[in-house]
Amino acid sequence: MPSYTPPLRDMKFVLHEVLKVQDGDIPGYAELSEDFTGAVLEEAGKIASEVLAPLNQIGDREGCRLENGVVRTPTGFQEAFDTLREGGWTGLDCAEEWGGQNMPHVLGTAVGEMFVAANLAFMMYPGLTHGAYSAISRHGSEQQKQTYLPKLVSCEWTGTMNLTEPHCGTDLGLLRTRAEPQGDGSYRITGQKIFISAGEHELASNIIHLVLARIPGAPPGTKGISLFIVPKFLVNEDGSLGARNAVTCGKIEEKMGIHGNSTCVMNYDGATGYLVGEENKGLRAMFTMMNEARLGVGLQGLAQAVVAYENALAYARERLQGRDVTGPKNPDGPADPIIVHPDIRRTLMDQKSFVEGARMFALWGATLIDADVRAGDEDAADLIALLIPVVKAFLTDKGFEMCIAAQQVFGGHGYIEEWGMSQFARDARIAMIYEGANGIQALDLVGRKLAAKGGKPLMGLFETIKGFIKDHEGREGLKADFLDPLKRASKELQEATMYFMAEGMKNPHAALAGSTDYLHLFGHVCLGYAWTRMAIAAEDALAAGTPDEDFYRAKLTTGRYYMRRCLPETALRLERIKSGPEPVMALDAANF
Amino acid sequence: MPSYTPPLRDMKFVLHEVLKVQDGDIPGYAELSEDFTGAVLEEAGKIASEVLAPLNQIGDREGCRLENGVVRTPTGFQEAFDTLREGGWTGLDCAEEWGGQNMPHVLGTAVGEMFVAANLAFMMYPGLTHGAYSAISRHGSEQQKQTYLPKLVSCEWTGTMNLTEPHCGTDLGLLRTRAEPQGDGSYRITGQKIFISAGEHELASNIIHLVLARIPGAPPGTKGISLFIVPKFLVNEDGSLGARNAVTCGKIEEKMGIHGNSTCVMNYDGATGYLVGEENKGLRAMFTMMNEARLGVGLQGLAQAVVAYENALAYARERLQGRDVTGPKNPDGPADPIIVHPDIRRTLMDQKSFVEGARMFALWGATLIDADVRAGDEDAADLIALLIPVVKAFLTDKGFEMCIAAQQVFGGHGYIEEWGMSQFARDARIAMIYEGANGIQALDLVGRKLAAKGGKPLMGLFETIKGFIKDHEGREGLKADFLDPLKRASKELQEATMYFMAEGMKNPHAALAGSTDYLHLFGHVCLGYAWTRMAIAAEDALAAGTPDEDFYRAKLTTGRYYMRRCLPETALRLERIKSGPEPVMALDAANF
Repeated sequence: MPSYTPPLRDMKFVLHEVLKVQDGDIPGYAELSEDFTGAVLEEAGKIASEVLAPLNQIGDREGCRLENGVVRTPTGFQEAFDTLREGGWTGLDCAEEWGGQNMPHVLGTAVGEMFVAANLAFMMYPGLTHGAYSAISRHGSEQQKQTYLPKLVSCEWTGTMNLTEPHCGTDLGLLRTRAEPQGDGSYRITGQKIFISAGEHELASNIIHLVLARIPGAPPGTKGISLFIVPKFLVNEDGSLGARNAVTCGKIEEKMGIHGNSTCVMNYDGATGYLVGEENKGLRAMFTMMNEARLGVGLQGLAQAVVAYENALAYARERLQGRDVTGPKNPDGPADPIIVHPDIRRTLMDQKSFVEGARMFALWGATLIDADVRAGDEDAADLIALLIPVVKAFLTDKGFEMCIAAQQVFGGHGYIEEWGMSQFARDARIAMIYEGANGIQALDLVGRKLAAKGGKPLMGLFETIKGFIKDHEGREGLKADFLDPLKRASKELQEATMYFMAEGMKNPHAALAGSTDYLHLFGHVCLGYAWTRMAIAAEDALAAGTPDEDFYRAKLTTGRYYMRRCLPETALRLERIKSGPEPVMALDAANF
Repeated sequence: MPSYTPPLRDMKFVLHEVLKVQDGDIPGYAELSEDFTGAVLEEAGKIASEVLAPLNQIGDREGCRLENGVVRTPTGFQEAFDTLREGGWTGLDCAEEWGGQNMPHVLGTAVGEMFVAANLAFMMYPGLTHGAYSAISRHGSEQQKQTYLPKLVSCEWTGTMNLTEPHCGTDLGLLRTRAEPQGDGSYRITGQKIFISAGEHELASNIIHLVLARIPGAPPGTKGISLFIVPKFLVNEDGSLGARNAVTCGKIEEKMGIHGNSTCVMNYDGATGYLVGEENKGLRAMFTMMNEARLGVGLQGLAQAVVAYENALAYARERLQGRDVTGPKNPDGPADPIIVHPDIRRTLMDQKSFVEGARMFALWGATLIDADVRAGDEDAADLIALLIPVVKAFLTDKGFEMCIAAQQVFGGHGYIEEWGMSQFARDARIAMIYEGANGIQALDLVGRKLAAKGGKPLMGLFETIKGFIKDHEGREGLKADFLDPLKRASKELQEATMYFMAEGMKNPHAALAGSTDYLHLFGHVCLGYAWTRMAIAAEDALAAGTPDEDFYRAKLTTGRYYMRRCLPETALRLERIKSGPEPVMALDAANF
């Protein structure tokens, strides 16, 4: 069975030595002392490794079953859910007003990485609930907040998001679910929604469905979509549960992975629903929580890569096969551990340098969300809006790739379910798809975010990186290995941006044909920046003297690997972008 | 349900217009007229699409079950197996002497691509049988040939390969299975083998296991391994079946994919076995059929990419979502088909340009095997030995990547098993692992094949490509798009080779640290060469006048895409190789 070890040392390094959250002036950050975050992370790590991880394979094997309208989740899920709930983990970064602990999002993100690494499918139940909490807390009426938020924060009730229909996923303008006003302020909701994660189950006493639907007479397309609360059980005025609402699970989908999560077809047959916010402004309401949700999905890609890497590393140290070409390293054994072989080390270094760089990137992103939400920092808001598609798509594309790489280390054993490596890959696969498929993230980045606010956020990022390089140009030890490669990659990103600006005027396909390449180029620049920041912190720690020299030296070595072997992909991406739209668009659709 | 359309037009193009097999002077090639191969391919295509493809999902869902020592294969497999057998397909390229049809391997490869695209898991039963046929026909005694080959050719009996044990996969020197001489010429085989594909089932009346084992007193390591025939039922002198042998299936593995194949733990408890070839020369015997087997696995990667691409293309033409950014292309419909979107086209072009280039590469490789086996062409033998690790690893790495890309086109539907895209990815995954994991292929390429015969085969390939470019340098229409990029990529491959030669002397880790990058660089050069050859054939056809202009123009457009957007990866690979062993090896194993 695979194991999971919480990367506490590495998280503390990023939080306290690189991001230095304890010194931040964002409200709530002053509490983030090393002692405090250390205690929280340690406790969360225990739950992750001792409660959630042991259920991961069970969830995969048993899956969810629909029996007479009731969905049964896998053995142990209820107890684990209760543990999470009782520990207050479900409301870690929710408002105190509603029973939450009001901790910054950056800490919630670190905790989230551990929980999701331990059990992705399980974490979707509280994860979707958090999404419903965010939507209602930002757009619901005071009465709706009073009714739903405390129960969602405690996960006494859970939540769902209902967007997709059989004929519409990305293009929500096509949606058909109807919402007819009943005259009493409520609406009758009728239609079918698919791919509804945590759509039906018995883990909680009620499920609060957030549903996008169309009110008769609404404008066509996305401008005529409204958001509704549709509870599984109607809620009486005193907060007690009333009648069962006309919403049922029609089917549980058979999926490639995340079997522990109940992915439901939900049928709304004149169910009672309540409007959230204004009529026809539903899509906007749904999208305001996108940053958190997409950061969360990016984190899933990273988290699966982390746990897959940990297991691949352990296997590579234990599995004896062949000899080091330069002479036996384990002469008393029948063979050497496979970590001696250069190609095994190559893949482990790929994985290690990705997960550590990506962790830094994700946590940095979380601090920007905190700066936006807690301190009203508009620059931070603009920057994270720009970065979010990169966090989501780059971390999930690469995260999946790393799960495949980790699986490969196991040889034939990687293909056998017993060893658990297949599950990490199968579970990680979904993160490239949901919450906006990665191609849509690339479209969002290139088609919307680049030009947002006249391009100011992007120019701001370039300036930040330029200033950062300048600030540290005196560090001779980092120049060739970190600062110069970062400068080169950043210039390539700027060149790609200029190319889009120049060509996009002539042909709107120009930027879109290169959008995925651009997103990956962007992602590498972000990880290159993340690694350079970590290298500086490591160099500082070594200069100051530390009992933990090996840790900091490993940081520098791993960072050098990333800069030398992974970052240069930027040049290939740029070359592809500059090949322009013609190669992509030249073939007539009929002639494929 | 996914569908499969045999790519007959494309196969004919490669066979008759590019490779021009009908003009080849290899024995048997004269029969390969367009009419003849057309008839064979059409018939095989029907079986693939009408008999095998409909069982693919059934096999995945039902899997194989072990009940009281008997393995049950999925519904319909027996009937399909009988169809294949009765049509003589199982002995297509086997010797007439043993009941085969003696057709060239190149035709068997084309047929194989179709069968494997339609149903990979199913095709492992006849596939492994073909492997056993090859081993016995090259190394068995006359009596063994008489006893086993006719039954293996007709698949009245099937075959298996038993190499792996729990503690030894790649490093076969560690194997422990014992073979004790019985004094009557037979041996008593005792031990456990794992991951035995088609190890037990009821599709055939007998199963001929080829087993690697160690005779007492044999030298340690790989020099003390012998090969044995261990039939499930002993065979009487008259060819009838005798007693059940002491070999049993202990377990069927739960795998990520290829569920229709019974992957068995096989227990040998003093089973009767017969030595094949000489004592202690078993590994050599097993490896002489490697070229065919590894080409076959490379073909699996390609074949899964083909069928996944076909389905992604069909979906992209049908699924209506969003509008072309330059204006509606389907104004009467609610939205445009997603093939209008540049990022969808990008991924479809990636897939299309890979599968067509890879097909050409694989079929070219098959002609080299024919030239070796049928005409004793030593240069061809040397060249295919060099290319085989590239065929195996490059086509399976990229084939899997393309299955993931095809799955992505389906958005959420790609993750739902019903649509079949997940299965293509899960099934394709194994091909990167078995028959020598892809890292081992890279090691074989760099550690063994480059230096084989003083590097002559590699230098020969460089000369071939150089001469080819020179021969066609007058083709102005192909210069910038094909010949120049091929020249550049080929030079990069030469540069990487020189780097290994220079550095490898000083540090044996130098080449190994860059081995996977080198293999991918090599693969791209091979596909660039394949595409340039196809472009020339297409240009010739257009110049000669053809009613099929769209086909040839599409060929040129697709080739240009590959050369412009895929081939430049060679530069990145070269940069990684030249970063040397230090980044890969610097971190101490304890500090990961």
